[in-house]
Amino acid sequence: MKTSPFAPKKSPQMPEIKGVQLAVTKSGIKYEGRLDLLCAHFSKGTVAAGTLTKSKTASGAVEWCRENLKRGHAAALIVNSGNANAFTGARGEKSVEDIGGYLAKILGCQTSEVYQSSTGVIGEPLPEEKMFQGIDRLKEKLGTASYSEAASAIMTTDTYPKMATRSCMIDGETITLNGIAKGSGMIAPDMATMLAYLFTDLPIEQKILQKLVSKAIDKTFNCITVDGDTSTSDTVLVFATGKANISPITDEKDSRLRAFNRILNKQLKELALAIVKDGEGISKFVTIKVRGAKGKRAAKKIGLSIANSPLVKTAIAGEDPNWGRIIMAVGKSGEAADRDKLNIWIGGHQVTAEGARIEGYDEAPLAEYMKGETILIEVDIGLGRGIAEIWTCDLTHDYISINADYRS
Amino acid sequence: MKTSPFAPKKSPQMPEIKGVQLAVTKSGIKYEGRLDLLCAHFSKGTVAAGTLTKSKTASGAVEWCRENLKRGHAAALIVNSGNANAFTGARGEKSVEDIGGYLAKILGCQTSEVYQSSTGVIGEPLPEEKMFQGIDRLKEKLGTASYSEAASAIMTTDTYPKMATRSCMIDGETITLNGIAKGSGMIAPDMATMLAYLFTDLPIEQKILQKLVSKAIDKTFNCITVDGDTSTSDTVLVFATGKANISPITDEKDSRLRAFNRILNKQLKELALAIVKDGEGISKFVTIKVRGAKGKRAAKKIGLSIANSPLVKTAIAGEDPNWGRIIMAVGKSGEAADRDKLNIWIGGHQVTAEGARIEGYDEAPLAEYMKGETILIEVDIGLGRGIAEIWTCDLTHDYISINADYRS
Repeated sequence: MKTSPFAPKKSPQMPEIKGVQLAVTKSGIKYEGRLDLLCAHFSKGTVAAGTLTKSKTASGAVEWCRENLKRGHAAALIVNSGNANAFTGARGEKSVEDIGGYLAKILGCQTSEVYQSSTGVIGEPLPEEKMFQGIDRLKEKLGTASYSEAASAIMTTDTYPKMATRSCMIDGETITLNGIAKGSGMIAPDMATMLAYLFTDLPIEQKILQKLVSKAIDKTFNCITVDGDTSTSDTVLVFATGKANISPITDEKDSRLRAFNRILNKQLKELALAIVKDGEGISKFVTIKVRGAKGKRAAKKIGLSIANSPLVKTAIAGEDPNWGRIIMAVGKSGEAADRDKLNIWIGGHQVTAEGARIEGYDEAPLAEYMKGETILIEVDIGLGRGIAEIWTCDLTHDYISINADYRS
Repeated sequence: MKTSPFAPKKSPQMPEIKGVQLAVTKSGIKYEGRLDLLCAHFSKGTVAAGTLTKSKTASGAVEWCRENLKRGHAAALIVNSGNANAFTGARGEKSVEDIGGYLAKILGCQTSEVYQSSTGVIGEPLPEEKMFQGIDRLKEKLGTASYSEAASAIMTTDTYPKMATRSCMIDGETITLNGIAKGSGMIAPDMATMLAYLFTDLPIEQKILQKLVSKAIDKTFNCITVDGDTSTSDTVLVFATGKANISPITDEKDSRLRAFNRILNKQLKELALAIVKDGEGISKFVTIKVRGAKGKRAAKKIGLSIANSPLVKTAIAGEDPNWGRIIMAVGKSGEAADRDKLNIWIGGHQVTAEGARIEGYDEAPLAEYMKGETILIEVDIGLGRGIAEIWTCDLTHDYISINADYRS
């Protein structure tokens, strides 16, 4: 598989985070000779916040995390790639319990402090023995892996590892936020998962962290789409070890939160965009800005309707400034729109005004613009103050090849 | 463009319908030397019923029909292909009024009795003069065109004309129902329209006809999808001239309605399937049967979620019995589902039971089945009595080629 044209030229230098110990290994669950198992061990007092797929056929690991997030205490994270352990019935559920129990026993923590994810093929039983053997090896290696190795171990059809780091100053101390992610579609071919894990040393109450994360996800991960298909295993988890030497944040009105919230949002956005930029078969990265909708929710729905339209996506792949299809996608969203107030810009060029294409419409500069690798589509609905920003990629022959032609 | 593998080997013999006079011509609106303008003239007392796109950016012709359907009196239908006259602003609206007025004047009827459709490129002004000249020629030719020519005149990227005929006996008289349709996707490339027109000699009150049509559409045209994109111009109209020699149907409980309703439903289904079978880039025709959902609406939503999933559609194109993607699509629909009650069959082969793949799962017969041209997917949600049947096609390289590579 060829590497995405948007793969970063170099990887960021990821600093250590106090209270986080990483280990990776090759368990051979599906891939031969490839890192496929990640364990993170956290210091006492670490809290976890996160969001999980809304799919009605969510995997056992997702339901396990949902349960443990209620208290949000964290001691360990275990992630395997190559097998999603989704739709594997009672046996799959037992695997999740067995693995959680085994890891808890080895690390001397509660099962309620263990977080799990599995990513890969749906419907195949997870080979538990290989997981146990892998965990035995990981135990000896805690603290030896880099974030870059961790990001590699969770990849499936990703064409590059995705990671990001940011820091902010609070009370004269440096607070660090590291993140890794995987995903090559909202769901990858044959695989099923978008995963992201963030780690920070900020001391913060779990409930406050959960609130920040939920809000930030809505404007970042919930605004990306590759193919509109939602995975059974989508998971974003943020772990805060509290090891930074400042007094803990226990009030959501604490003014020190602002600096952290800013880097949290930026980082989630960066990781979300990294997933789109590795979207299956991507040749163009597309930003869709909607404004003037009746409300935020309406703006997002309109933006996603454009971003998920196969006709809009194929037009972009064909470098065709086919704005008629954008009109169609706005119309099919079901949200309020008034033809005579709707305006569209492509790459800053206005194409419509007052319900028709602009006077002296000239397609030449648009056609030229469409040859670029990054495409900006702006839509003003003209009815209200709702805004949204959505990120997606085009729909290419390579998407079909990856998903239709290449199954073993 | 290559003809769909599902194109019929021979066209049906379409009988005359008393009170319907057809005419077609080459107006040169966009296509050179091709039939592109259809006029149907109806005898006095003809009523019309129909359904129109729910798009919020519907075309002027659609809004014109919506207005005239309120009374449902019909004297004429005019349809052009090559230009959708959609999103053409005040000028486009004026075109609709001008054309409606011109045709009404020539035929000596009310503008409220004229029905119009336009199909083709979105956003380009309609060349009115060519329409007027075409109408002048059509006037001289009323009653000279066949249904086959009518079906050809409304084609855009269709690879074959779509028509159907059925009859039933009521009070010893033969009642005939003819239908023509066009469409190569819910929206065709660069074009925007699924159109269908039915003609019958049944004498029936407009309100009763409208009720029958609305109900039938919900189980036929509203259950097909090629790419999930909804056109700005989707239109289904049924014209009843009342020329058959039986006493008129004025009561919706009239037992004679049953025979007509049966052929109406069958015909709408046949025409709807003809559109899917000419879906852009189709290589496989797919039927999705959902049962056991919480209700009818839930069943339909689950069926459409499967039918519109790019990952399910590409798997089918790749002849891959990838039922994990069906699970994913059920899960993302948002409708109630319980993993342990969900069951899936592909081509009659059960693949899952009790939340996991069946004991002794064997992919060989499934893989063999997927090589066929028609694919049946059955899903039992196991929660209620809601059922739905959805028809779609696969997502192939040809779809991408048609929509990305081939714009002038």
